[in-house]
Amino acid sequence: MAGLRVGILGATGAVGTELLQLLEERSLPLEELRLLASPRSAGQQLPFAGETLPVVEVSEDAFQGLDLVLASAGGSVSRQWLPIAVAAGAVAVDNSSAYRMDGAVPLVVPEVNPEDLAHHQGIIANPNCTTILMTVALWPLHRVRPIQRIVAATYQSASGAGSRAMAEMKDQAIAILQDRPPPTDIFPYPLAFNLFPHNSPLNEQGYCQEEMKMVQETRKIFHAPDLRVSATCVRVPVLRAHSESLNIEFQTPFPVEEARTLLGQAPGVRFVEDWQRNYFPMPMEASGQDDVLVGRIRQDISHPCGLELWLSGDQIRKGAALNAIQIAEVLLEKNLLG
Amino acid sequence: MAGLRVGILGATGAVGTELLQLLEERSLPLEELRLLASPRSAGQQLPFAGETLPVVEVSEDAFQGLDLVLASAGGSVSRQWLPIAVAAGAVAVDNSSAYRMDGAVPLVVPEVNPEDLAHHQGIIANPNCTTILMTVALWPLHRVRPIQRIVAATYQSASGAGSRAMAEMKDQAIAILQDRPPPTDIFPYPLAFNLFPHNSPLNEQGYCQEEMKMVQETRKIFHAPDLRVSATCVRVPVLRAHSESLNIEFQTPFPVEEARTLLGQAPGVRFVEDWQRNYFPMPMEASGQDDVLVGRIRQDISHPCGLELWLSGDQIRKGAALNAIQIAEVLLEKNLLG
Repeated sequence: MAGLRVGILGATGAVGTELLQLLEERSLPLEELRLLASPRSAGQQLPFAGETLPVVEVSEDAFQGLDLVLASAGGSVSRQWLPIAVAAGAVAVDNSSAYRMDGAVPLVVPEVNPEDLAHHQGIIANPNCTTILMTVALWPLHRVRPIQRIVAATYQSASGAGSRAMAEMKDQAIAILQDRPPPTDIFPYPLAFNLFPHNSPLNEQGYCQEEMKMVQETRKIFHAPDLRVSATCVRVPVLRAHSESLNIEFQTPFPVEEARTLLGQAPGVRFVEDWQRNYFPMPMEASGQDDVLVGRIRQDISHPCGLELWLSGDQIRKGAALNAIQIAEVLLEKNLLG
Repeated sequence: MAGLRVGILGATGAVGTELLQLLEERSLPLEELRLLASPRSAGQQLPFAGETLPVVEVSEDAFQGLDLVLASAGGSVSRQWLPIAVAAGAVAVDNSSAYRMDGAVPLVVPEVNPEDLAHHQGIIANPNCTTILMTVALWPLHRVRPIQRIVAATYQSASGAGSRAMAEMKDQAIAILQDRPPPTDIFPYPLAFNLFPHNSPLNEQGYCQEEMKMVQETRKIFHAPDLRVSATCVRVPVLRAHSESLNIEFQTPFPVEEARTLLGQAPGVRFVEDWQRNYFPMPMEASGQDDVLVGRIRQDISHPCGLELWLSGDQIRKGAALNAIQIAEVLLEKNLLG
């Protein structure tokens, strides 16, 4: 194959920016890179590999000739344009939630279920950030002894709500430090020096969308429809990278040392534990990293078959853009494009 | 009783400052207020009720004539001086961890186990902040159907590490916003825009002291030696007030509506839930409040006998100073002083 003709739909957002950077860093052979966006963002110029690329308005004809489309412009944009991209002959890796639970669409974390890509019908879904980070960390354990139940509490950074949210949190911090009221245009409540349960819509049982993504997507990725998961998702005043406290129950005891060994060898995981220095994964250190930082693995003293585990991971990188690029790399390697 | 002669040991710290404010606000009859501190802090003057009180150096004679000593100067100071205070005839309410697990010392949250005060032998222990907040919220449920297991994840503010820690986090935020390296004199790692597992010493099982306090103190306060508790304590970049995500297991299902009704009537609890607005307890709103804000009660979808619950509470106020003052109020009311 000479090289790929790749389109990015939503190139100007936080994930789009990261996709461009990863395409520079990594080894996908590019013949063409086409940046597509809504009319609002079209006309911008973005730097790429020493050149400047124009952002053009997405249209019926914009996908002609593309092999691969990486979409990160939100669910409604994906629903509108990805079927057109696929009809034009491209394979689409979608970062939105639009197709994730569609039975015909593989939902893939390359470290976990790359084999699911074989059955794609044009669209492949990239999981939600919190799910990707959790599944990378738990799969090495789950494949040895199936997990029965997960109780998750998350610590999610401002960047999960986009680059404007990050800027708003910085403005809020400055305002609070100067005794001025913090601006809240994007977040419903001040986030700087504060925190609040994730503000996605709540279902009738009181779980928010973000929490239900962790429940449903993990089951689909692990092919474990009966896996019991509960999650509490919380937005915290961190700029970038999400953290998660995971309580995991197995059917039989899981020796801590075995878990440590497995995670020490696991792809996509960097094991970060220094018990002497009280040094464990932190979002500050996970930011900009490809690996999910995992550590603080403990036997749960409240359950004989339980483990406690702590992780931090860059949710824009591995939690979104990198995972999409890795999917594209597997598609190319396995000859599943076009 | 004419009025109480009260001493505060550690009057210049974050909790000491709050104790002074609460003594101004609340109704304990004061005949004398004596401020005691280490040689380092002695000589300062602190405002109280329109006057200025001197901080005097703690000594063998400093407790003479006192009815009540409120101690918040750390474990070693309490161990050194409280036996002397008690020998001099005072009752001591200790905010440090020195005596909490001493079988002869009541560990009391007035909303939960005020009856334990009856058996005091001079020293009464105030529980750790995270434990106080959790027990106030869970006792109304536990007394109806005993809790079998708690899995807690905490979101603890900088102020839990003292007023200098709060100041350091503000300095860190300014430094990071100005692209300068953040100072870390008090915390081991930058806390502003970051977070990390609680940096108290770790035991052989990998649990830190803060976590084991939640385990052991809750058992003692609830008189439930077999209660199973696991906790993950995390320091977050919030100035004041701690939050906790609590997963609670009962032996039989606990209807959510019943839990909601019980917590709506519970002393020390303010029920904060507006599902339409996605509005739940936040540390920003818990700061400076007497009540623990509790909400987001959900049936745990991963366990038929489980509930999920979220809280925020001011750990300097109810988590420390207020609880100590409330203990003193019960002691006075039940004639247990002197």
